[in-house]
Amino acid sequence: MLEKLTAGWETSTVSDLKDLLEEARQSKFDFVAIPLVHPRFERDHLGVSDGRMGTLTRSDMEVDSRTWTTCVVGKVSEWLDPSSPDETVRLAAEAGMKQELAWASHLAVPAVLMPSPPRTECANYARLLNQVLSQPTMLQLWVRVSLSRPSVADDSDEEEGEGEEEEVQPTEEDGSPRSSKGRDLGRASFEKEATRAEGEFVGSACTSTCALGKAGGKRRRPGAQALPGPGLVPPGPMSPRENPWETWNRLRTLCEFKSSLGVALELTGDLPDPHVLQRWHGEPVKALVFPTAIFLTNKKGYPVLSKAHQAFVLDMYRFKIQVLLRGRNRHPGGYPVYLQYLEHLRLKLFPLPEQDRFESPYYDFLQAPLQPLMDNLESQTYETFEKDPVKYAQYEEAVAAALAVTAPTTVTVIMVVGAGRGPLVRASLAAARRAHRDVRVYAVEKNPNAVVTLRNLVAMEGWTNVTVVATDMRTWVAPEKADILVSELLGSFGDNELSPECLDGAQAFLKDGSGISIPCQYTSYLAPISSSKLWNEVHSYKDLKHMETAYVVKLHNFCQLAPAQPCFTFAHPNRAARIDNTRYTCLRFPAPMAATIHGFAGYFEAQLYKDIYISIVPQTFSTGMFSWFPLYFPLRTPAYAPEASTVEIHLWRNANERRVWYEWALTSPVTTPIHNPNGRSYWIGL
Amino acid sequence: MLEKLTAGWETSTVSDLKDLLEEARQSKFDFVAIPLVHPRFERDHLGVSDGRMGTLTRSDMEVDSRTWTTCVVGKVSEWLDPSSPDETVRLAAEAGMKQELAWASHLAVPAVLMPSPPRTECANYARLLNQVLSQPTMLQLWVRVSLSRPSVADDSDEEEGEGEEEEVQPTEEDGSPRSSKGRDLGRASFEKEATRAEGEFVGSACTSTCALGKAGGKRRRPGAQALPGPGLVPPGPMSPRENPWETWNRLRTLCEFKSSLGVALELTGDLPDPHVLQRWHGEPVKALVFPTAIFLTNKKGYPVLSKAHQAFVLDMYRFKIQVLLRGRNRHPGGYPVYLQYLEHLRLKLFPLPEQDRFESPYYDFLQAPLQPLMDNLESQTYETFEKDPVKYAQYEEAVAAALAVTAPTTVTVIMVVGAGRGPLVRASLAAARRAHRDVRVYAVEKNPNAVVTLRNLVAMEGWTNVTVVATDMRTWVAPEKADILVSELLGSFGDNELSPECLDGAQAFLKDGSGISIPCQYTSYLAPISSSKLWNEVHSYKDLKHMETAYVVKLHNFCQLAPAQPCFTFAHPNRAARIDNTRYTCLRFPAPMAATIHGFAGYFEAQLYKDIYISIVPQTFSTGMFSWFPLYFPLRTPAYAPEASTVEIHLWRNANERRVWYEWALTSPVTTPIHNPNGRSYWIGL
Repeated sequence: MLEKLTAGWETSTVSDLKDLLEEARQSKFDFVAIPLVHPRFERDHLGVSDGRMGTLTRSDMEVDSRTWTTCVVGKVSEWLDPSSPDETVRLAAEAGMKQELAWASHLAVPAVLMPSPPRTECANYARLLNQVLSQPTMLQLWVRVSLSRPSVADDSDEEEGEGEEEEVQPTEEDGSPRSSKGRDLGRASFEKEATRAEGEFVGSACTSTCALGKAGGKRRRPGAQALPGPGLVPPGPMSPRENPWETWNRLRTLCEFKSSLGVALELTGDLPDPHVLQRWHGEPVKALVFPTAIFLTNKKGYPVLSKAHQAFVLDMYRFKIQVLLRGRNRHPGGYPVYLQYLEHLRLKLFPLPEQDRFESPYYDFLQAPLQPLMDNLESQTYETFEKDPVKYAQYEEAVAAALAVTAPTTVTVIMVVGAGRGPLVRASLAAARRAHRDVRVYAVEKNPNAVVTLRNLVAMEGWTNVTVVATDMRTWVAPEKADILVSELLGSFGDNELSPECLDGAQAFLKDGSGISIPCQYTSYLAPISSSKLWNEVHSYKDLKHMETAYVVKLHNFCQLAPAQPCFTFAHPNRAARIDNTRYTCLRFPAPMAATIHGFAGYFEAQLYKDIYISIVPQTFSTGMFSWFPLYFPLRTPAYAPEASTVEIHLWRNANERRVWYEWALTSPVTTPIHNPNGRSYWIGL
Repeated sequence: MLEKLTAGWETSTVSDLKDLLEEARQSKFDFVAIPLVHPRFERDHLGVSDGRMGTLTRSDMEVDSRTWTTCVVGKVSEWLDPSSPDETVRLAAEAGMKQELAWASHLAVPAVLMPSPPRTECANYARLLNQVLSQPTMLQLWVRVSLSRPSVADDSDEEEGEGEEEEVQPTEEDGSPRSSKGRDLGRASFEKEATRAEGEFVGSACTSTCALGKAGGKRRRPGAQALPGPGLVPPGPMSPRENPWETWNRLRTLCEFKSSLGVALELTGDLPDPHVLQRWHGEPVKALVFPTAIFLTNKKGYPVLSKAHQAFVLDMYRFKIQVLLRGRNRHPGGYPVYLQYLEHLRLKLFPLPEQDRFESPYYDFLQAPLQPLMDNLESQTYETFEKDPVKYAQYEEAVAAALAVTAPTTVTVIMVVGAGRGPLVRASLAAARRAHRDVRVYAVEKNPNAVVTLRNLVAMEGWTNVTVVATDMRTWVAPEKADILVSELLGSFGDNELSPECLDGAQAFLKDGSGISIPCQYTSYLAPISSSKLWNEVHSYKDLKHMETAYVVKLHNFCQLAPAQPCFTFAHPNRAARIDNTRYTCLRFPAPMAATIHGFAGYFEAQLYKDIYISIVPQTFSTGMFSWFPLYFPLRTPAYAPEASTVEIHLWRNANERRVWYEWALTSPVTTPIHNPNGRSYWIGL
């Protein structure tokens, strides 16, 4: 989420760039989105003009490079149709697009707004984008995508708007356009110099503040050339048979999901179904485009959005997203009132809930899962976990409930295994106080650093009934058997920090029959997700190892495609004659809409005791608990799931004497290779 | 294709291995396929026996390691069902399969015959195979796959056969099997030593000759334990809803197409449709399994196959394939008569046609396409090409036909550009003789080494009307203009050795209007293919670069999924004002059957002059011509095409000042990334 609203003004009518920038500044815009080249400038299929058309575009010296790199998003000509079946049109479009992108690269604009793919069949368009993005370039490309197929009403409304925008006269020159696709626009004139101003531009490769503002306030000259008629900036017409997401999905798949390819998502008057809207949560949406025509007017005459639009926009504001306003002023007060409204809407997200404030630095940040058995945790890791407001309260409840069923006349023996710096000891003692029971507590901890803290704590707090045992619970020879075994060895996926293996060892000193393990049972959950962001984070390592590793990550820019389903369950104590902690499951998820699957989210739910649970599964989440982020299992290649297909996931928990590891694969909608065979890329050491 | 028939005897009835080997040798078998372990040996899910069952299997010392590694294919127990939904059955199967594969690895048998996937849902079976194949191992796994779903008739017939095989008595021991899936088989007894014999075993990791034969001729003891009843070696039952190829395809996809996973393809009485049979041409079929029950009896009482079976078997014999015979003797003369028949059938392939003899060393051997512009060809390359019996005859025809339309009273100027060591000069002179025309020939060649040969040739042959010009045709300043420009600059894909760019330069010295280029036009062709072999050859390089390169290769172990379609056409001379040799096409191929697409085959057809063509496109192939092998464009990830889907391929020919390169992608049945953007992996230098 951005610190402040960052808004741009999209227009195709530029007579003087400095004037435009000044006008934008006065209207409170942070940047402008303008055509890269003179739209009159017709070129043939080799990108060559006949010389009668004057210059291709305004000089790069019209504003300084700081302004170009922070305040100007370049727009590639909308009329270019590189997927046209007409070869002449196609070749001209290829040449034009290459030329404009080369110019954008020369200017180093922070982003380029690319035309909506003009047709479903967009492979040649994709080839051009992919060629640019495969070169060493800092260019960020934003492909304009409509939220839904534009209705006739939308189009005509917009055209009317465009036609009325700016009080300027169309002027026809004598140059004869070579292509019927040509559009007319006034030449740029080159006068004033913009100076820098404030306003962070997030689309920018640089992190400097925006140069927009403080430019001399010269107004555009009336009579400067502008659009002759309707249709200059229409969203590209989509195939009537395909929704815009499908075309976008094909385009980015052809471009191999490159992270420098984003979406400028244009809102439409009609909104698609909520689950189709939600699918955009997993996409790299860089900007929301608001045509002024989609705003309603409230009683006071101000522009507002419908409730449904508001909800979607608020959802999208959670991501690092900018806004673009386009179309004519339709309300008194001009563009600033639209921006005020969009900012007003954004402020509804604030103040952020406590949990969001804590978690937001971790959004989509990949972490290797802890290896608490092999490695010793650090002090700050303990400190973070100990702050959880929910977890220890639930443990205290669970211990109290367990004490209620133990013999009341004797001293109850509680063993806290993996005691760390003592929070479970504290919770156990608090439970005993509440239950008016005498307890004898053993705090077993293998990390010698944590033992230091633990021993100090015992001394400081005067816990005479607590014995600190510095050893590995799996090999400890306990002096007596416990009534209650308390542990918090759970990972994001329940068993993934080897709680089963640890407790299988520790249960040796739990009383037969009556002994209680807290937790007594836990279950991992799995759900397919779409997240271009996360997949690219993993893919950026450019090796197989990272594509076959599960990550702890606060999932943010993602869309979960179906409710999570239970995966593996472990119960403790486990009195089976031969304990087998390997697991295998196959889960089937209905995919309500077409989607690209980038992997799976892993969660867990643990039954501490009786009806006392902790959970990070979305449908049963323990509100306020922050000790666990989900696990992300990537897929090596994102898999396309058509509408109404079934996503079939296989997951294995494998083990040998030294390691535990997961393997996973899809068998529907496509079959993938089995990931991580033999734990070659990712494993947890015993 | 193998030098000789290599045949194995598949049996599950082994009382004494050395006896069996001797019996096999006497029956003219090269190897035997026998169970790896005692089928009575029940194990629980941890692979543990209760000790009452005796040893797991016969000792590895029963025969020497040379025999194990060349004469014995190990069979994993057919009753193991690692994909069973019953967890107890599944876990026992996992343990059993691991144990048997570990034993096979210990013995270093040249191949292991794996059970037919017992059900459509085979992910867990795949996981076990994949784990084994992902380790450093030399094991070759052959998965038994039935050619079609076994009919009831086949089964009952087979069971009857198995029951009657060997005159031995079933003997029940008192061991109580833990699983209802258990099968009974006699224990091995360990007596005699086999010594080496002849017979190459191709499935073997080692290349030594087979050790089978010359063993002491001790016969199996009557009364040794054997199968108690029917069904020991049935093909695993397939899902009635899915054909066996689909299950195999899912299995190998989960195992990431590993080359050490092959197919033992078992023939059935009924054969599927011809195109379904043909699909196996692209698969790694290591062995054909012939149940004796599928043989018919001819008038003389000998076993024969139906015409349809013969055709399929002959087709498959073209590959490096072995045969396995299984089931009881059903004809007088015993097993040798079956083998005689199978060898008799094989001999129908011989003598190989001249072309096959020449080409067979190149089968599926990847070659980088020539870069004749950048590199100079070597002498032996010229020599090979000059031997083509068709190409130069066609050129001579074409030159003669072109001479017929030139002015008869003057000397005709012929320029041979890229003259090499002179075969086109020779063809041109021969044509002039035939046409009784005076010609003046310029032989233009940039390779100084070829020029040496050329000048010697001119002197030796006394070609007074031939001028050798040692220069690059693109920059030569010719002393006069030519009537006929003759060139052979074509690559496997027509334009891929830059014939268009060269001829665009050379046409400067062709007479305007009347000048003739031979060839006057050429068109590349493309077709989707399935070839596990080729894809694995490319994949074995383990980098992106090789997956984005096109290869010249004599396609052999492959299945073309649809007729080739025309792709790019170039015509010469090209009198366009601006010559553009970039191309783009999108081709759509109907996929009649489900298939895995491993890439595309590229071909070309060239019109030399008027009705005189040369072609390597399968449907118009110039019989006998061997100068060009097809081009193979791989796909980075094989793509599954369901039945009745459309394969949609995009191919681009890109060019800049220094290079020409192709890019390619699929958009149906799945969308792939665009391969080779900007020619990053593969290009042809100008």
